[in-house]
Amino acid sequence: MAALPEGRVLTDPDVTESYARDRTFLPPGRPLGVVLAQSRDDVVATMRWAADHRVPVVPRGAGTGLAGGATAIDGCVILSLSRMTAIRELSPRDEIAVVEPGVITADMDRAAREHGLMYAPDPSSFEISTIGGNLATNAGGLRCVKYGVTRDSTLGLEVVLAGGRVLRTGRRTMKGVTGYDLTGLFVGSEGTLGVITAATLRLRRAPRSIATIAAEFTSLRDAAEAVAAIIAAGCQPSLLELMDRTTLKSIDEWKNIGLEPSTRAMLIAQSEGSPDEMAALCGAASFVATASTPEEADELVGLRRLAYPAKERLGQCLTEDVCVPRSRLPEMITSIEEAAARHDVMISTVAHAGDGNVHPVFIFERGLAEPPPAVWAAADEVFRAALDLGGTLTGEHGVGVLKQRWLGLETGPLVTELNHGIKQVFDPLNILNPGKAI
Amino acid sequence: MAALPEGRVLTDPDVTESYARDRTFLPPGRPLGVVLAQSRDDVVATMRWAADHRVPVVPRGAGTGLAGGATAIDGCVILSLSRMTAIRELSPRDEIAVVEPGVITADMDRAAREHGLMYAPDPSSFEISTIGGNLATNAGGLRCVKYGVTRDSTLGLEVVLAGGRVLRTGRRTMKGVTGYDLTGLFVGSEGTLGVITAATLRLRRAPRSIATIAAEFTSLRDAAEAVAAIIAAGCQPSLLELMDRTTLKSIDEWKNIGLEPSTRAMLIAQSEGSPDEMAALCGAASFVATASTPEEADELVGLRRLAYPAKERLGQCLTEDVCVPRSRLPEMITSIEEAAARHDVMISTVAHAGDGNVHPVFIFERGLAEPPPAVWAAADEVFRAALDLGGTLTGEHGVGVLKQRWLGLETGPLVTELNHGIKQVFDPLNILNPGKAI
Ligand SMILES: Cc1cc2nc3c(=O)[nH]c(=O)nc-3n(C[C@H](O)[C@H](O)[C@H](O)COP(=O)(O)OP(=O)(O)OC[C@H]3O[C@@H](n4cnc5c(N)ncnc54)[C@H](O)[C@@H]3O)c2cc1C
Ligand SMILES: Cc1cc2nc3c(=O)[nH]c(=O)nc-3n(C[C@H](O)[C@H](O)[C@H](O)COP(=O)(O)OP(=O)(O)OC[C@H]3O[C@@H](n4cnc5c(N)ncnc54)[C@H](O)[C@@H]3O)c2cc1C
Repeated sequence: MAALPEGRVLTDPDVTESYARDRTFLPPGRPLGVVLAQSRDDVVATMRWAADHRVPVVPRGAGTGLAGGATAIDGCVILSLSRMTAIRELSPRDEIAVVEPGVITADMDRAAREHGLMYAPDPSSFEISTIGGNLATNAGGLRCVKYGVTRDSTLGLEVVLAGGRVLRTGRRTMKGVTGYDLTGLFVGSEGTLGVITAATLRLRRAPRSIATIAAEFTSLRDAAEAVAAIIAAGCQPSLLELMDRTTLKSIDEWKNIGLEPSTRAMLIAQSEGSPDEMAALCGAASFVATASTPEEADELVGLRRLAYPAKERLGQCLTEDVCVPRSRLPEMITSIEEAAARHDVMISTVAHAGDGNVHPVFIFERGLAEPPPAVWAAADEVFRAALDLGGTLTGEHGVGVLKQRWLGLETGPLVTELNHGIKQVFDPLNILNPGKAI
Repeated sequence: MAALPEGRVLTDPDVTESYARDRTFLPPGRPLGVVLAQSRDDVVATMRWAADHRVPVVPRGAGTGLAGGATAIDGCVILSLSRMTAIRELSPRDEIAVVEPGVITADMDRAAREHGLMYAPDPSSFEISTIGGNLATNAGGLRCVKYGVTRDSTLGLEVVLAGGRVLRTGRRTMKGVTGYDLTGLFVGSEGTLGVITAATLRLRRAPRSIATIAAEFTSLRDAAEAVAAIIAAGCQPSLLELMDRTTLKSIDEWKNIGLEPSTRAMLIAQSEGSPDEMAALCGAASFVATASTPEEADELVGLRRLAYPAKERLGQCLTEDVCVPRSRLPEMITSIEEAAARHDVMISTVAHAGDGNVHPVFIFERGLAEPPPAVWAAADEVFRAALDLGGTLTGEHGVGVLKQRWLGLETGPLVTELNHGIKQVFDPLNILNPGKAI
C-alpha cells in the first residue's frame, strides 16, 4: 500500500472497526486496513496492490446498507469511496450529471433542483447514503413508483476493475445499444464486479406541483385496496407508501402524532394530479389529510421517513425487503401478520406499496449478537410466502450476506452458475467483495 | 434435426432464401435450413441439435432489423420465432403481460389497450416487428422519450441457452435485485447470448388524453431549438419527432401533403398537457397544426410513420441511427447536411428528437449490391461526428453486422474483451449468432 499517499490508509483497529459494519447486526470480519480514496488513482493503486497480494477488497459508500454488502471480511481492505464527493458536471440542457461515488444522494438531488431538475431515486436513507452505494445496490426509494430505480437513472459508469484497469461503460445520451449492457450489469452488483469511481446520471424535470394526502384506515386490507384503486385510476402516483399500526405506534410514542386507537394503517400518496381525486379513491379511509402547502406536504412525507428511526428506538432491527406483484399486497401483509403471531415476534411493516415492495422490520432485544431463532423462523416464513406469491426476496436492499441462505430458493443452480461465470470474467482472482451478492 | 416434428424445418433453398435477410442490403450467407419453432421445446431441440453438430444458429423475429442482426450466416440454421405468438397472460391489476416472442409489437399494445393499459415501446416498425426482435435489439420508438426503451418495460425472460438449457431471469414484480441483472443483459444482446422464448413485460396505464401538434419551420435549427424549449419547459412530451425537408418532400411526392416550398423541418409533438403550451414553445414555427380529434392526431403522427416507406420509394436505403446528447442535436444535424453536400449523397433525416436519436437515411441507386463509396464516406463522417459530440453509433437499431467496422471507435479493447468474456460464459461453442453485435 506504499503506492498510496500518506493519510489515506488507516490501520489502527480502533479506527478501522468503525468502517467494518453496515446497518445490519452482522458481525464483521477483521480488516487489514481502510483506504480513504480521494481519486480514481487511489482506487487504481489499491486494486493493483490488492491483486498483487491477493487481498480481498470491500468497497464501501456510507455503510447504510441493510444486507451486509459492505461488511468487512477477515483480512480485507475496506475501500471507502465516501471522500470522492465531486459533482463534476451538471448539464441542465442534457439533463445529466457526472458525479463521483461519494456524493450523498440528497446532495445530488439538491444540486439538480437548482436547475428545476431532480435526481429521482430517493431511498429513505437519501440524506446519509452515497450515490456509489445506491448504484451498487440498485437502490429504490419513495419516488421510484413513478420514476424507476437507480438503474433507470444511470447512463454510464467509470469503473476500476479488480486488476486496476479502468473501464468506461455506457454513454451520455438518453439511449444507446452498442454491445452488452455493462452499465446495467454493474448496477446492483454490490461491489463484486468493480469499483464505481464515477457515474453519468440522468436527471429529470422536477414536477411543477405535487398533491399530497395521508389517509388513515381501520384495516390494512382497506389500505391495500386503496393502493390498487389509485393505480387503476391512472393517478400515476410519484409516491405511495403504506405504514402499519406497529410502525405508526412507534412514531406516535416518539413524536406524539395523535394516533387514533382504531387506526391500523396509513397511506401517504403524492401525484401531479388532484388531491381530491386521490382522496376519493381512499373510499374506506377513516380520515384523509390533504397538504395545502409544501411544508405540510413535507410533514406528511416526513412521517414516513421517521418510520425507521422510530423502530430502532424499540430494539434491534432485522429489516426485510420482499417484493410481490402489486395485486398480492394484501396477501403478503396477511402472511406477515400471521408469521408475527405464530412466532410471537414483533414485526413492524412499511411498504413502497405502489411497487409491491414490503419492508417487514423484525424487532428484537437489544444486546443480542444476532436475531433469536423465532425471528429467523418468522423471516423464513415471510420469504417463502413472498416467493409463493410470485415475488422476490429483495426489492431494493440486495442480497449482501444476509440473504445468501435463501437465494437458492429464488434463483436455482443455472442462474448461480451464470452469475459466477460473469463474476469470473470481471474478477478472476475473486478479490472483489468475495462471498457477497451471488 | 430429426428431433423436430414434421413441417417445422424448411430446407428448400427457394424458401429458405426469404428468411435469410433483414431490411438491410447486406448479402446473406446460405442457410442449411429454417426452423419454424412453435414452442419452447422446438427451440430446445434445435439448440441441442446445433450444439451437437456445431452448427451456428441465427434467431429471427420478423426480419425488420436495420443492422443485419438476423442476416443468415453460411451453413447456419435460421431459428424463426415468429410462430410463437401467444399472449399467455395479461394482468391488468399487476400491469404485466407474459408473452411469446413472436407476438407483433402492435398486437401487444392493442391487447393492453383493452384494459386501459398500453405497451409503451413502439418502434416505427411496430405493426411488423416482433416482441422477441424488440427485446433482442432493445428497440426504441416514438414514445420512449417519456416511457423508456424496451429494456425499461422488461421484467423477466425465459431464455433457451446455446446448449439447450432453459433459463428463467428476472421476476413478475416491479422491482427486484437478487443477483446480477441477467434480464437486462439479454435485452439488446442481438441473439448472441440466448434465444428468448417468453417475456414478462411491464404495461403502463394509457394516458387519459393526449395533445398533438405538428409545427413547420423554415430552418432545422429553429426546430431543434423548439425541441429544447419543449423539454426545458417540463411538458414531458410522450412523442417528439423531427423530419427534415428531404423526408417531407418524399412524403409529399407520394401523398401530396401540400408541403410549402419554404418548410425545411417539421416537428410532431404529443404530451398529456395542453397543445397551446407546446405550440407557444414553437416560437419560430411558420405554421402550427393542432389536432382536435383522435383521428386528426393519428393523421399527424401517421405522417412520421410514412417517413420510412416514402424514402424507400426513392432508392435503396442505408438507415443510420446515431444518438447524441440532446443539446448537440443542431450540431449533429449540421454535420449530416455537411456530409451530404461534401460527398454529394442524398441523406434524408428523421429524429426521435426528444432523445437526441437521429436517423440519417442514405439513399442510393437501386440495383447496387451495396452502397457506393461516397455513401460509406459520408456515413463514416456522420459516425465520427456523433462520437465527437459525445454520442453513440446506435441509439436503438443495434450493431448487428452493419456497424462492426466502427464499433472499436466507440468502445475500445477493454469493453470488447469483457463482452467476449460474457459471450463465452453463455455460449462457449460460439454457435449463437456468431460474428454479430460485439
Ligand atoms: C434508515 C434507512 C432507510 C433505508 N431506506 C432504503 C430505501 O428506501 N431503499 C433502498 O434501496 N435502500 C434503503 N436503505 C438501504 C441503504 O441505504 C441502501 O442500500 C444504499 O444504497 C446504501 O448506500 P451506502 O452508500 O450506504 O452503501 P454501503 O452500505 O456502504 O454499501 C452497499 C453496497 O454497495 C457496495 N458499494 C458501495 N460503494 C460502492 C462503489 N463506489 N463501487 C462499488 N461498490 C460499492 C458495497 O460493497 C456494498 O455491497 C435504507 C437504509 C437505512 C439505514
Ligand atoms: C420501417 C421500419 C421502421 C423502424 N423503426 C424502428 C424504430 O423506431 N426503433 C427501433 O428500435 N427499430 C426500428 N426499426 C428496426 C427494427 O424494426 C427493430 O430492430 C426490431 O426490434 C426488429 O424486430 P424483428 O422482430 O424484425 O427482429 P429481427 O430483425 O428478426 O431480428 C433482430 C435481432 O434480434 C434477434 N432476435 C430476434 N428474435 C429473437 C429471439 N426471440 N431471441 C433472441 N434473439 C432474437 C435476431 O437474431 C437479430 O439479431 C425499424 C425498421 C423498419 C423496417
